[in-house]
Amino acid sequence: MKRFLAAAALALLPGFGFSETPCCATGDLGLIIERATGSLLVVDRSDRAAIGRVEGLGDLSHASMTYSPDERFAYVFGRDGGLTKVDMLTHEIVARTIQAGNSIGGAISDDGKLVAVSNYTPGGVKVFDADTLALVADIPAPGKTIGLADLPGRRFIWAVWDSGEAYLGDFSGAEPVITNLGHIGKNPFDAVVTDDAHTYLIGLFGEKGVTAIDLWDDTPKPTRFLNDYGKDKEDMPVYKMPHLQGWAFTEGQFVLPAVGQYDLLWVNRETLEQVATTPVHGQPVFIIAQPASPYVWVNFATPRNGVVQVVDSRTHQVVKTLEPGKAVLHMEFAPRGAEVWVSVRDENKIVIYDTRTFEKKAEIAAQAPSGIFFTARAHQPGL
Amino acid sequence: MKRFLAAAALALLPGFGFSETPCCATGDLGLIIERATGSLLVVDRSDRAAIGRVEGLGDLSHASMTYSPDERFAYVFGRDGGLTKVDMLTHEIVARTIQAGNSIGGAISDDGKLVAVSNYTPGGVKVFDADTLALVADIPAPGKTIGLADLPGRRFIWAVWDSGEAYLGDFSGAEPVITNLGHIGKNPFDAVVTDDAHTYLIGLFGEKGVTAIDLWDDTPKPTRFLNDYGKDKEDMPVYKMPHLQGWAFTEGQFVLPAVGQYDLLWVNRETLEQVATTPVHGQPVFIIAQPASPYVWVNFATPRNGVVQVVDSRTHQVVKTLEPGKAVLHMEFAPRGAEVWVSVRDENKIVIYDTRTFEKKAEIAAQAPSGIFFTARAHQPGL
Repeated sequence: MKRFLAAAALALLPGFGFSETPCCATGDLGLIIERATGSLLVVDRSDRAAIGRVEGLGDLSHASMTYSPDERFAYVFGRDGGLTKVDMLTHEIVARTIQAGNSIGGAISDDGKLVAVSNYTPGGVKVFDADTLALVADIPAPGKTIGLADLPGRRFIWAVWDSGEAYLGDFSGAEPVITNLGHIGKNPFDAVVTDDAHTYLIGLFGEKGVTAIDLWDDTPKPTRFLNDYGKDKEDMPVYKMPHLQGWAFTEGQFVLPAVGQYDLLWVNRETLEQVATTPVHGQPVFIIAQPASPYVWVNFATPRNGVVQVVDSRTHQVVKTLEPGKAVLHMEFAPRGAEVWVSVRDENKIVIYDTRTFEKKAEIAAQAPSGIFFTARAHQPGL
Repeated sequence: MKRFLAAAALALLPGFGFSETPCCATGDLGLIIERATGSLLVVDRSDRAAIGRVEGLGDLSHASMTYSPDERFAYVFGRDGGLTKVDMLTHEIVARTIQAGNSIGGAISDDGKLVAVSNYTPGGVKVFDADTLALVADIPAPGKTIGLADLPGRRFIWAVWDSGEAYLGDFSGAEPVITNLGHIGKNPFDAVVTDDAHTYLIGLFGEKGVTAIDLWDDTPKPTRFLNDYGKDKEDMPVYKMPHLQGWAFTEGQFVLPAVGQYDLLWVNRETLEQVATTPVHGQPVFIIAQPASPYVWVNFATPRNGVVQVVDSRTHQVVKTLEPGKAVLHMEFAPRGAEVWVSVRDENKIVIYDTRTFEKKAEIAAQAPSGIFFTARAHQPGL
């Protein structure tokens, strides 16, 4: 009887017209950004199927998102400054605010209570109540903020393009405590927290080199390394700035995209010395570690963006080249690593590969798909 | 109107009498084993609250569990050979089978389709359909199986106490393919897969040393290291065999409990050489890395089991000693590291600490609690 009631109750829930199966657990769901239409495709990872679509998210031409700890809500950061809260159960927008003129990304506090957004126009970081999207803090900055990431204990870290400084914001008390971590170099363009939240890595546009900040230190300070980083062998145009969120961490190494070059750079995590270079198909955009494996997967900037390569972090050799289709924009792994989902924008599809056999397991139709975000990200620091 | 319908529908769902808030997303839920009563306490991590209880699971005096990829179902492995499937949404048992006389643990395949159980009586590994719990494979073994873990691509690995051999089982094809990985040493008592699924580490009872198998190798082979491991300085009784699932992996190191001693042993992950020893309060049982931090937390065997210690993996020094209460049996971290839940069996409670301030944030009543399992485990290889 109880079982029957549950089934009857679920049948009343809205938003399930897309799929045969009503979905109530949220651990294997995901959202795919449909950039041209300002919509999100809701997917079920286990079924390898689309189960819904959410529309009306504005300009998603450069969008990212983060999930609440219960994996129920997604917070989508749009190019137009829109912050949109989406319910993964009903496939509906539950709150939306245009909080700035141009936003670049955001993060959620580890307890799920606060959502922070880093803005270009105007600069600074705005912090919102994750429940209502009411503004709870407006942290000014001397310019555009980049590389915003969460740290444990209701904290965030970010950098400022114009002033070349990094800041740590602690929101665990009654009032925010903002600490200037010092000068990190000229025009930081992106930054990322390593998987163990040990190091904040900052890429620079205005000068050579990479800056690291040890987040486990009591008084975190910037350190410079890889002092040739960013230098072009030839005067090649950079078709797309690589995403530093794509830096992979594997086998005691960081893997960085060489800016403007057809190379991956491998850096020893302990010594911060470069240990190897891997020539690849094009200018790397995302370099993503395949979980539970020695491999990283790489996609490339236009016009060489129809290819994905797989590189072994032990030998630094390319072990596989795949051609998923025209304009591969993003890759997302099943959290335990057995398959990878690849968005192929110009063929309006997602292609799913088995990571052991490289066989194509399924395709899903999507409208000009870009970023793929599985709910498992809710449990990872710095994502 | 749609919103109203959803609320009305949720109100009909059974099993929510325990809590004010109906729960539908499953990313921040967990189960706590109540060993004396054969029951499970259902908890909401965000609310720091118990929201339900599931009864009738038989003998849970030495139990573990694993979660389906959608974080909807838990599979509980009981001491009495019982395999029980629990619905996290309704807090009900949906399937249960007594599949052996004495089982020691189990794992779920990365795609969530198969649940494998390692058994003592009789020995061997049984594999079940995760949906129905119907038996799909019965793999005999020359004795008791231990250390069963999942690997990507619908594979499992395990070892056999009596024959001292390890096996890899591939269930991705029509028929299982079982590979004998060779002799690993006398009487393996437990084994664990590292967080990157690179290495299978096996503890030996019948002789000194630890065995490692490189799971990324095309032909994985056993390698011996730490050849003094297991040797007692004095003839101390071992009050409880340490759990190898408690081996922590941090800062390029493994951390092992010294069998029978009041010590932690630190081993370099690359060289497999011991690099340090940390004297601690008692015989270590679980050594668990706090996510996004340099710290490991340790609990201890009876009679010194009222204490938890925090050790810095950089300095190998104890940095904090806490006294949560009588008989601390287990610790589980919020997946992004900001708090830890500690089960205190003889005081019938769970104590929750802030990992930065060490302040007690909450207590939850529980009946003789032991293992704490958050649903975020669904996304981690080898758990």
